[in-house]
Amino acid sequence: MRAASLWGLCLLGCATGASLGPSAEARAGIEEGNRLLVAAALVGNGDRVATVFADDATILPFRLPGTIHGHVAIAEYWRNRLAAARFLELELTTAEVSANGDLAYEVGTFRAKTQAQDAAPVLSTGRYLVVWRRSVDGRWRIQADCPIPDPPSAH
Amino acid sequence: MRAASLWGLCLLGCATGASLGPSAEARAGIEEGNRLLVAAALVGNGDRVATVFADDATILPFRLPGTIHGHVAIAEYWRNRLAAARFLELELTTAEVSANGDLAYEVGTFRAKTQAQDAAPVLSTGRYLVVWRRSVDGRWRIQADCPIPDPPSAH
Repeated sequence: MRAASLWGLCLLGCATGASLGPSAEARAGIEEGNRLLVAAALVGNGDRVATVFADDATILPFRLPGTIHGHVAIAEYWRNRLAAARFLELELTTAEVSANGDLAYEVGTFRAKTQAQDAAPVLSTGRYLVVWRRSVDGRWRIQADCPIPDPPSAH
Repeated sequence: MRAASLWGLCLLGCATGASLGPSAEARAGIEEGNRLLVAAALVGNGDRVATVFADDATILPFRLPGTIHGHVAIAEYWRNRLAAARFLELELTTAEVSANGDLAYEVGTFRAKTQAQDAAPVLSTGRYLVVWRRSVDGRWRIQADCPIPDPPSAH
């Protein structure tokens, strides 16, 4: 009985973080990063969104050619994006995380409702591959970001 | 003179792999993986393309909903893709590689000329974010693959 209780505590400890593997630790950091990004996007603060990205991060922007590289360019991209349309809703759902030391990747899905000026709100859904890196301050930040919309037939 | 020759040999050694950093070592493995993928795609061998992917890899396919996960599904995806259109040309150009231990990511561009049956060849260009992992056999394999086309205005 007592042995069973101790065993139960051990299992509880494992499940609540006492012995997280690297991927579980990364996942917690990544989900915290996603919460910060969503909160900043919903209040329209592009500079705050950019703080979730590493200084030398790269975005592959679906609707623009090339890539957007580095903190200054990423902050400008997000300011412009949030000035063009505000987010009424934004959900990021993590499906898969795997980590190796300070580097990890996440596969997930997004669901966004945006509104440009007084136009009708637009719902968009899609998937993303994001590479995260743990910074020297211990926070996980986005190192590379590749979001793609679902194909029209999937809506 | 002799000292200069020895110094030259040392530099040669460094340049040919004697003291590669982790990202340079990853880059060499990634470029070898890309060569294998391109060669297999050009001869229309989907099963051979799939050997460049890790057993538990994920593809985010631009033209299909959801994700394609695992070796069996990835081999089927590539067999179907190569049956639908053959690659007349395929170039992958690595722009950025960063590694941490056995995990790395690559940002690059692609240029493909494909032909479905007797239709006119179609040129497509785009960008990709690929996560690579070094397998237990030492080979770098694709762990997650997110290719996106350039927007129409960029053609």
